[in-house]
Order: sequence, then C-alpha cells, then structure tokens
Amino acid sequence: MSNARTFTAEQLRQSIEEIFVNAGLTKEQAGPAAGVILAGERDNCKSHGVYRIEGCLRTLAAGKVKPDAVPALTDDGAGIVRVDADGGFSPAAFALGAPVLAERAEKLGIAALVINNCTHFSALWPEIEALTERGLAAMAMCPSYSSVAPSGGNAPLLGTNPFAFGWPRPDAPPYVFDFATSVVARGEIELHRQAGKPLPEGWAVDRDGNPTTDPAAALEGAMLPFGAHKGSAISTMIELLAGAMIGDLTSDEALDYLGTTAILPHHGELVIAFSPRRFAAGRPGDPFRRAEAFLDAIAGQGARLPSQRRFAARRKTAQDGITLTGDEVAMMQRLRDNPGEIKA
Amino acid sequence: MSNARTFTAEQLRQSIEEIFVNAGLTKEQAGPAAGVILAGERDNCKSHGVYRIEGCLRTLAAGKVKPDAVPALTDDGAGIVRVDADGGFSPAAFALGAPVLAERAEKLGIAALVINNCTHFSALWPEIEALTERGLAAMAMCPSYSSVAPSGGNAPLLGTNPFAFGWPRPDAPPYVFDFATSVVARGEIELHRQAGKPLPEGWAVDRDGNPTTDPAAALEGAMLPFGAHKGSAISTMIELLAGAMIGDLTSDEALDYLGTTAILPHHGELVIAFSPRRFAAGRPGDPFRRAEAFLDAIAGQGARLPSQRRFAARRKTAQDGITLTGDEVAMMQRLRDNPGEIKA
Repeated sequence: MSNARTFTAEQLRQSIEEIFVNAGLTKEQAGPAAGVILAGERDNCKSHGVYRIEGCLRTLAAGKVKPDAVPALTDDGAGIVRVDADGGFSPAAFALGAPVLAERAEKLGIAALVINNCTHFSALWPEIEALTERGLAAMAMCPSYSSVAPSGGNAPLLGTNPFAFGWPRPDAPPYVFDFATSVVARGEIELHRQAGKPLPEGWAVDRDGNPTTDPAAALEGAMLPFGAHKGSAISTMIELLAGAMIGDLTSDEALDYLGTTAILPHHGELVIAFSPRRFAAGRPGDPFRRAEAFLDAIAGQGARLPSQRRFAARRKTAQDGITLTGDEVAMMQRLRDNPGEIKA
Repeated sequence: MSNARTFTAEQLRQSIEEIFVNAGLTKEQAGPAAGVILAGERDNCKSHGVYRIEGCLRTLAAGKVKPDAVPALTDDGAGIVRVDADGGFSPAAFALGAPVLAERAEKLGIAALVINNCTHFSALWPEIEALTERGLAAMAMCPSYSSVAPSGGNAPLLGTNPFAFGWPRPDAPPYVFDFATSVVARGEIELHRQAGKPLPEGWAVDRDGNPTTDPAAALEGAMLPFGAHKGSAISTMIELLAGAMIGDLTSDEALDYLGTTAILPHHGELVIAFSPRRFAAGRPGDPFRRAEAFLDAIAGQGARLPSQRRFAARRKTAQDGITLTGDEVAMMQRLRDNPGEIKA
C-alpha cells in the first residue's frame, strides 16, 4: 500500500508522461495526453484524471490506437484546418491544430478545426480553454460510441456525444460548459447497478424500448438523451456534423470498429472558433464587457455559472499542489513499472 | 362572418403582402415577410402563420420596426457576412444575406451570417431550409426577450432563444430541427392559465424563484430552460454568440428596448453555414450518403425525425391548397382594409 502523495503540476505531468512513454508512446503522443490528464486532476475532475490512464493503455494493448502516430495538418488557407491524427490520441492532434485554428479564426472571423482518425479520451473543456485563452469563443463536439437511443427509439444509436462551449472573460476564468448529451454518463448507470439502486425515471429504456428504472435492464437497453426530443436533436446534429460531415465515424460505426465498449472510442472531432473582435467590429459596445454584464446578471440571481467548481479546485491546487490517494499512487507505480500487464 | 377559403400558395402570399403594403411597408420589406408567414401556413405551423400578421402591425404601430428599412450588406471577403437590417423585419435582411453566405461557405468551407438591428418574428426553419436547399448544413440562433430564468436562478434573464439546425438530404426533405430553449413557449403557459389548468412541474418558477405549477404565478415569475442546466447553458451560449458577440441586444436588453412583451422583439441573429462537400474532402465515403444511412437507422427504430409533420402538411397543401378558416379570412380582410385600427 502506498501513501497519499502531493505533486506539483509539473511533477504529476511528468509522472503520467513517463507511464505513457514506458508503454511505448512517443513523446509527441505522450506529452499532450499527459497534459489533459493532468488538467483533470488539477481541476479535481477525477473522471478525466489519472483514472483514464489505464483505459488509454488498454486501448493501446487492443491495437486500436497507434503509439507512434504522427499527426499531419492540412490547410488550404480557407476556413477549415484539418489534422489527421494518424490513429493516435486526440491531444497531440489538437495541439498541432489549435494555433492554426486560432490564427485562422482571427483572420476570417470564424474557422473550424477538424480532427480525423483519433482516439478521444479527454473532456472537451481543455480544448475549449486553449481557445478562450487566445481570446476566442469556441464550440466543440464529437461522437463517442453508440449507447443512447434517439428520442422515441429503442436501441443504442447515438453516443453520449459531448457538446462544449467557451467564452473568454477578461478578468476571470472563461465561461465554459461541457456536457454529455445523454441524461447521464454511462458510469452513473453502472454505479446504480452496483449499489442495487433503481434509476430515476427518464434515464433509460430496456432492450424493447420500454422505460425502465432497472440498471441491469438499462445496460442491456439504451440510455436516453437529455431534454427529450431537443437533446436527441442536438446529439443527432453532432453525429451529422462531427461524424458524417467530417468524413469520420458516427457513434454506431465507432462501436462496430472497436467491437467493445471497454476501450476508448475512435472517431473525429469538430471545433469551431469565433473571433468576437471580428464579429463585433463596427457595432456599438465592447463584446467582452457586454458579456460580463450578462454573466454578472446570472451570478447575481444566485445561479451558478458552469465550471466554477473546476476553477475553484484549480485555484486550490495551484496553491496546495495536487494530492493523489495511496491507491492512485500505487496504480501509477504499477502502470509505470509493468505496462505490459494491461491487456485489451 | 366570412367563409373558409382555400388559397394557392401564391394567392395567399399576395394577400399577406397586400396587408403589409397597405400598412406602409415597402415591397422589399413586405415580400420576404409575407413569404415566411406563407411558409408557416403551407406547413400547417399555425403559430408562425397568418396569426403573426397582427403582431407585425402592432410592432409597426409602436414605432419599433421601420416599414421602409433598407437592409445593407457589408462583406470583407472573409468568413463573416453582415446584414444591417436597418430596423426592419428580419426576412428582408436574410433574403439579402443568404446567397452571399452560401457562396462564402462553399468557398471557405464555413461562414457566418450576422443579421443586426432587426425585428424577428419568424421561426428559424425557413432560414435553415434556404441553406439546405443549396446543399449546405446550417445552424441558426437568436435571443428574444427575457422571460426565462437561468437554471438555479429566480428571474427572467434569458429569452426563449430558439436554436435550429439543418442537414440537406438528396432525395427527401432536409433533416431540420428548430426549438425554443425554454421548456415550452410562453403561449403554452398562457393557455394553461386561461383553461385554469396547473402547469406540469419543471416549467416555471414564481417571482421568488420557487418552483410553481400555478400559471399566474409563473407569468409573474419566469419560465425555465429545457433540460435543466444543460438547456440553460445552450441558451446562455445563444445570448453570448448571437447577442454580445455580434454587437446586438441580449434578451434582457431587448425587453428594455421594447418596454413590453406585447410586440415583437428587436435583436440580431447568427447563422452558420457549413459545406459538407468541403468538410469531407479527401475523406472516405460520401457525407450525404453516410448521413442517409444514419438517419434511416433513426427512422428504422420507429423514432420520428423532426419536422416530419411540417413536411407532410407541405405535401398536402401543395396538392389541396391552403385553407384558412372563416375567422382567419375575416381577420385578413379587416387588417387589409383598416391597417390603422391596430394600435401599439
């Protein structure tokens, strides 16, 4: 049994990167992947923290992600910047594309980054924040693998398809949201099953498409989208734009490709960046100051802006460091020293 | 009392246009406005049909829309096409901007149309369909006037902020959705009040921010967003992108400007167009055929694609003509002959 340990951000980043390098990833793949896992721990967003490392290694062992992928950027100077991830993890591809996307959005006012052919294991907010840091608003979306029935349907077809958005704030962390278009994450249903607790109504259907509160029946059936037909429509839009349109896998095709839900999904991603400076040009008022008045009015009602818990955790870990539990420290040591023990 | 009457589409369009011209609108304003109201009747979408004419005239009588506005397009050749509606109705502005937006999206892959300074009374789907007809995917959004509390809040700040999306289908009407980001339209709450029926839970809060099922208390309080914090986040995104970013009014500012909810809101709009041909370039598979397989899989589950009722009505009225009730015919005659009777 290991003891809990407190890391600086750079120490933890290096420890995660070391695990990936020991497992065979190139520095180019390992560095950005470690960066987004670090960001999860830094923000106390544990579902995207060191817990993800094992899933990455399992996907590697399954031969479904390429450890030495070399992302390649193609750019015709127009509004679409494209990075082929070469079958690697998405963070390396995003790191290559983000500066070009930002430059293009400043030049044209609006631009899109397409990432193709990647394994995506990250939340979308690290990517959104990479753009808000550059003074841009941004929208990001991707499929996952099919586990959600369309509204009115009875079988998995849509993914949990995350949708994220960010707006830069001059004197505060950005306005950022990032949510699954399913009612809940699949893990929530598994947790209810393990605890023997019924699901709230509206979360899932059984394999015949009937509403169910039985977690086991839900796992054999399908989850439901948030917000009934409206959430289903948004999830469908994500399959069309970030699947069919960008020439990459839909969630249904992603599951076919993987053959299992136990490893990380392979698909593409669409990120749209907006230059508020360009969009507001010639119009009265400063868009950033006007947005502050609007966001202050939300907070003034006592309504919480999204991501505030993450930003509070970030302030805290900047001061106190990032503490992993003894179990987490032991897990990381085990993965570092015996990367081969992880099977597909 | 008039009799019900059946019109051809062109007859009805001319009758609506005549009312607007009699009320003082120029042909440039009246024609496109009549076109979107006709589209509402053609698709049996009565909430955006001839019922809207009186609201348009009331807004005119209040001096809040300019009858002889001349929309002006500015375009620097980059990704943002801008139309200043000059204080007129949005359809004339959209008609001017749409072809340039479409050309720009084909050229750059992605482009945006900003409409500023307009009175918006139309659903967003007519605008979306004008782009899907050109083989483009499109997303549209706008504020309205504040009537919805942010999730966790207690007072109107957000509008019912519609969000719409469309995808072109080669051999079928497009995939199109268009919904309010409030749980329901404000009119639904008024209908419950008139019928003396309690509201379903989750629709509204009273003026103290407490959940209420009393329609009168809801009308004094605020509606709620669809999908709890997720719908609230999307509505907030619309205020930021299609309000602050484009240098136009947020829903809160729009209500301040109008001083009443009895006339039509004044604000801007953001439309984003995508060229699937450009986004899919160099990738395997045809994006339109792949989308068909995906959409067929939704329909194959017995789930209904959005807008199917509208498209069925459109097929029917193309055959049978558009029938207005005696009351509707009388209302149109009254508005045509006495446009001055409508007061603000």
